[in-house]
Order: sequence, then C-alpha cells, then structure tokens
Amino acid sequence: MADTLTLHEDPRSGNCYKIVLTAALLGLPLARRAYDITRGETRTPAFLSQVNANGRIPVLQIGAGEGALYLPESNAACWYLAQGTSLIPAERFAQADCLRWMCFEQYSHEPNIATLRFWLAIIGEANLSPEQLAAIPGKTAGGEAALAVMDKHLEPRTFFCGAAPSLADITLFAYTHVAGEGGFALADYPAVAAWIERVRALPGFVPMD
Amino acid sequence: MADTLTLHEDPRSGNCYKIVLTAALLGLPLARRAYDITRGETRTPAFLSQVNANGRIPVLQIGAGEGALYLPESNAACWYLAQGTSLIPAERFAQADCLRWMCFEQYSHEPNIATLRFWLAIIGEANLSPEQLAAIPGKTAGGEAALAVMDKHLEPRTFFCGAAPSLADITLFAYTHVAGEGGFALADYPAVAAWIERVRALPGFVPMD
Repeated sequence: MADTLTLHEDPRSGNCYKIVLTAALLGLPLARRAYDITRGETRTPAFLSQVNANGRIPVLQIGAGEGALYLPESNAACWYLAQGTSLIPAERFAQADCLRWMCFEQYSHEPNIATLRFWLAIIGEANLSPEQLAAIPGKTAGGEAALAVMDKHLEPRTFFCGAAPSLADITLFAYTHVAGEGGFALADYPAVAAWIERVRALPGFVPMD
Repeated sequence: MADTLTLHEDPRSGNCYKIVLTAALLGLPLARRAYDITRGETRTPAFLSQVNANGRIPVLQIGAGEGALYLPESNAACWYLAQGTSLIPAERFAQADCLRWMCFEQYSHEPNIATLRFWLAIIGEANLSPEQLAAIPGKTAGGEAALAVMDKHLEPRTFFCGAAPSLADITLFAYTHVAGEGGFALADYPAVAAWIERVRALPGFVPMD
C-alpha cells in the first residue's frame, strides 16, 4: 500500500497550490491540513518540533505516526510526487533545465510577485509597515523583469521545457496566474497569458482555492 | 568525447563556487570565464542574448559553438554535473530531501547571508543605500534563523542527508563557510562549524578563490 500523503498548508499560498496541482495532475490522493500563517499557526512549538523547524509551510507529510517523513520546500515536495513521471524530464540537460526554471521561480519570481500579492491582496496596503511600502517599487521592477524573461522564453515554446508540461510549468503557474493580485498586468506579457491558458487546459487541472 | 564545460562566473560569488566545488569533487574539468558583476558585465546585450536573458551568473555552458547549451541557476548547474553520481541520492525521499536543502539555501539562507556578505565585504558599508542599510537587521535575523535551523539539523548527523555528502552540503557550504564576512559568528553554531571542517576534508575539495 502506498504511503498516505498529507499537505500541511495555507490554502491561500501559491507555494502550497503547486503541490496540490502536481498531485492532481498525477492523480495522487492528497489529504490537506490548513494553517493560518497570518495567525502564527506555523510557529507553534508543536509545529516547529514535528513538522518543520523552519516554521514554514508547505510541508508534505509522507506516511503517518512515528515513521512519518516530513518534506518542507514546495519544489522539493513537487519533486517527490513527480519522480519517475513525465513531469520530470529524464534526459540529463532537460532535467537540469526543468530545475533551472524551478530555481528561477523561487529566487527571481516568488520573492517579488508572491510577496506583493501577499502584501496587497492578503495583508492589505493599509496594514503594511514603512519598510514594506518602501520595498514595493523594487519588488514591482523585479516581478516585471521575471515576467519579461518568461515571456521571451515562452514566445517560441508550448511549455517551459518544450512540447510537454513539466514541474517548471506547474511551479511557475502558481503565482503567475494570480500576479494581477500583486499589481502586475499579465496582458503586457502575451506569451505568458497564452501559456496560462494551456496550463489550465491540462487533464486533471484543479484551480487554486 | 564529453562536451566541454565552461562556467560563466564572478569568482567572488558563492553561487559560482558551488559549481566549481561540485566539478572538483567529481573530477570534471571546468573552464572558467570571469565577469565583474559590480561593473554590469552580465547586463551587456551580448550576455543577455547569448548566455542568460535574466542577466545573472553563474551560467554553465555545455559544449561550444552554435550547439552550445546554457544553464543558469547554480543549483541546476550542480544538478547537471552530479546526475548519476552519489552526490544526488537515488532513493525517492532522499533525493527530494537533498533538493529540499538546496531550496532552503536559495530561499532562506542565500538572500540573507550572501547578500550581507556582498554588501559588507564587497560593496562596503559606506557605499550602501539607505534602503540597504535599513534591510541589514532583517537580513541578520533571517541569516541567524537559517544557521540555527542548520545547526539543529546537523547536530545528530554527519552530512545534511545522512552519512554521505550530497549536493545539499556543497550548495550550503558555499556561503556558510564565509558567513563571517557578512557579520555572522559561526562559533555560535558548533554543529555547523564541525560540518564545515568535514566538507573541507572531502577528497578533491578546492577552496573558494
């Protein structure tokens, strides 16, 4: 019998949605346990000692009870689920190139686009600190640069790593398709906008909550 | 004949050193081409059109001439080099757990520890903008939190993913061993300090330039 899979998540988080979408596209059952990160529910002693000492979600739990394994970091959880499937290219360069776009997402895309969405659509501009308000122009420029890189790459391609979808598409889709909530105009990036519709049309696709 | 490998790098960058160290531990010849990121040498039209549209180093070039392939993102380049070797665990959970620590490095460690090192040891505190100076306390706290997570994890372990070294160790070593240049006191993290010496003792180890 396969191990049960449980996602420790905040359903508003695109990082959690990546794992939900990967499981759905692969037809894998996934239990979900919700935490509210704005109430500190991932910083409790129980969470820190059992689920993730880094105090962050998502965490993918594999199995149950004393032998359960816990896997933080959204991209690593997606990798666990997708190993041996077509969502991770098997060829040497293609596999590294898939990981390249997943790294780009975590380093050049998410800290700008996801953070602005969190600040503007979840925390609310009126509740931001002076430091956060001062960081908005830089994060806007960084997010626009990331979307421009994606648009140029996608212009001649169907998916990020070629003709077939991979984890690169799933992980980049999560915060790109809601970038409007962070103040970004996706209509300015037509290749990205067309790719979003191709991801939505994948068999098994599920929308973000 | 194997493809030639060329690293487009700034030798002061820990992200570039990760790739140099991976190649050295694997005994792979690696040509190196240096750029000065503080002079904008990775933002020229030639670099953006040929090497990396995202304007960043490191980029691993595989092959030469028209058929050359370019792989940005340090962790993806390390992954390309190490596929099929013991530096990437083959077992499903262990491989995802190795990637988990590589993601932790890029998301929770590098933006704090590497950025402070770059600001304080390369740019110089006197040359920082008011926004950069204001960000120092937050990045110091973030870096200390990352080092504490590492210290707790390493306390009962030899390497990040168990008894054998993996890419998790190489990628985390790069900026951790020079964290002192960013104002961090490694003596406060004894398990991290002991692990640094174990990485330095690996056969084939090369120091940062």
